[in-house]
Amino acid sequence: MYSVGIIGATGAVGTEMLRVLEQRKFPVSEIHSFASTNSVGKELPFCGKLHQIEELTAESFERLDIALFSAGSEISKRWREASRRAGCVMIDNSSAFRMEQDVPLVIPEINAHDLVGHNGVIAVPNCSTIILLMAIAPLQKLGRIKRIVVSTYQAVSGAGAWAMKELEEQTRLFLRGEAIEPTILPHPIAFNLFVHNSAINESGYNGEEWKMIHETKKILHDESMAVTATCIRVPIFRAHSESINIEFEGERPSIEAMRETLAQFPGVKVVDERGANYFPMPKDAAGHYDVLVGHIRHDISNPHAVDLFASGDQLLKGAALDAVQIAESMIEQGLLTK
Amino acid sequence: MYSVGIIGATGAVGTEMLRVLEQRKFPVSEIHSFASTNSVGKELPFCGKLHQIEELTAESFERLDIALFSAGSEISKRWREASRRAGCVMIDNSSAFRMEQDVPLVIPEINAHDLVGHNGVIAVPNCSTIILLMAIAPLQKLGRIKRIVVSTYQAVSGAGAWAMKELEEQTRLFLRGEAIEPTILPHPIAFNLFVHNSAINESGYNGEEWKMIHETKKILHDESMAVTATCIRVPIFRAHSESINIEFEGERPSIEAMRETLAQFPGVKVVDERGANYFPMPKDAAGHYDVLVGHIRHDISNPHAVDLFASGDQLLKGAALDAVQIAESMIEQGLLTK
Repeated sequence: MYSVGIIGATGAVGTEMLRVLEQRKFPVSEIHSFASTNSVGKELPFCGKLHQIEELTAESFERLDIALFSAGSEISKRWREASRRAGCVMIDNSSAFRMEQDVPLVIPEINAHDLVGHNGVIAVPNCSTIILLMAIAPLQKLGRIKRIVVSTYQAVSGAGAWAMKELEEQTRLFLRGEAIEPTILPHPIAFNLFVHNSAINESGYNGEEWKMIHETKKILHDESMAVTATCIRVPIFRAHSESINIEFEGERPSIEAMRETLAQFPGVKVVDERGANYFPMPKDAAGHYDVLVGHIRHDISNPHAVDLFASGDQLLKGAALDAVQIAESMIEQGLLTK
Repeated sequence: MYSVGIIGATGAVGTEMLRVLEQRKFPVSEIHSFASTNSVGKELPFCGKLHQIEELTAESFERLDIALFSAGSEISKRWREASRRAGCVMIDNSSAFRMEQDVPLVIPEINAHDLVGHNGVIAVPNCSTIILLMAIAPLQKLGRIKRIVVSTYQAVSGAGAWAMKELEEQTRLFLRGEAIEPTILPHPIAFNLFVHNSAINESGYNGEEWKMIHETKKILHDESMAVTATCIRVPIFRAHSESINIEFEGERPSIEAMRETLAQFPGVKVVDERGANYFPMPKDAAGHYDVLVGHIRHDISNPHAVDLFASGDQLLKGAALDAVQIAESMIEQGLLTK
């Protein structure tokens, strides 16, 4: 049994982390929730009992075996050393350490073996990267993937609980014909969409696109894999979708082989009913663990390429679930001593 | 001056056709609006006067020089011969005749010259095709385009005025926590998105994707142009957006050259402010004639490719405006005799 801390427990991902630990019967001996000062003392439910939100200090880590961080990069950076000194394993949902060489970046179904090299910190990949790779990594056994062109349809949950509230509130205002003043997101999101609001680098990509490109190479251990991404925020609450074009180096697999391979992969569900025109949708992905994959077809523009469409819950497989699965995989691999 | 008929005058596109004719001071001698039986006798405004909606008969065409059709393929097919016999020019917004060899498929800024060969019927391309081509055709003068990978973010207006009402009504129900029963669109659209609801063909593409692929080749007169498309319906009222990856045959143009070339092209507005993270958005495209193009960057995954993002009003440049521009271009070219 493990003493587990949730840093950012009142946030959109933190809330799901508590829920996922409970749903999956993670072997929790003690649960400790941490949040910002104004939440300290408030109570959160876990496994039928209420526990008080605590203030995070360096001493907190002495009481933790595992710390699940989801409070932004700054918080993760501030506490890494305290966590490491206390021998606590930090599973970090922020982008703070993802590209560091001794930090495994892990989607357990894909590269659980990378956990072995950990040095006290494991990073959860970007939510869009996770959903992309759940859809494409299974196909690698059917042939080497050479290039990926992906366009995202990202839910507002990726910008946190307040952004979800903002979508709801703006939509009400819009329907009443009232003016919208964005506060969390930079542009109106009600009945609108926009290029992801992370800074644009000198190559012209935004931060989110850059993460998808480079995290993919790291997770798949293939620096030569060519990836381009266009990341778009859409007025959806919590499931991301992605339109993915995959170019194989050699012959592309048959549709049947792709469906079978995807269906057998843990955490993936094939939703590909051509006759009924039923494919992955955020409404079906929201609240569920599986990444849905469908609209699978041979790309008519390139004899080596295929097109597909995926939806996955940004807060679950895109964040909280992946973090908990990392902890589970570490236990299985004997990497978490108690 | 020309006697102009609008077939489908009460629909989402028909309404805009009347407005666009008025805004652009199209030389109208008489306006005739036609709609389904239950609208006959109702009045519509045009240039400050009301006129009655009429019932369409074969004789109607005797009184028309130009008939702008936007009432679906079946209606267009039913009246083609009557229109042709009466010497009326049919400008058809449906997909009924688009791929017929003697029917010009025209975006006037791109292939107005194709109007010369018309045989009484001119087709307006699919809305998603128009927005795609407005963004890419200008770039052809910078180098031959070899392949296009496009993913759409399509507004509900493409499914008509009732679908727009459905989005509004479903959103209200959703926010009140009430059950949603889709009636016009096949799946819930409030805070959801889905693969375009046109039939899937044996290649696995839906009808909308197939149109984008094949209409592009026809309009650009390049059967060898490779195109793949993924068409997605999003909860947006009236502007479509598209994430477009363009592969050039030779060297790709510089960002600056692309911005300049696009900015000079009539009907295109470059919205590409990297510092402010301001790019094309449906909220800025809705109600405007121009197709907005931005987030222009060199694709890091392919040394010959570029990525960009476009938004355009589906009802205007995607339909009504393009139809009226076709009529204007025919007058300019002396193809409409009065």
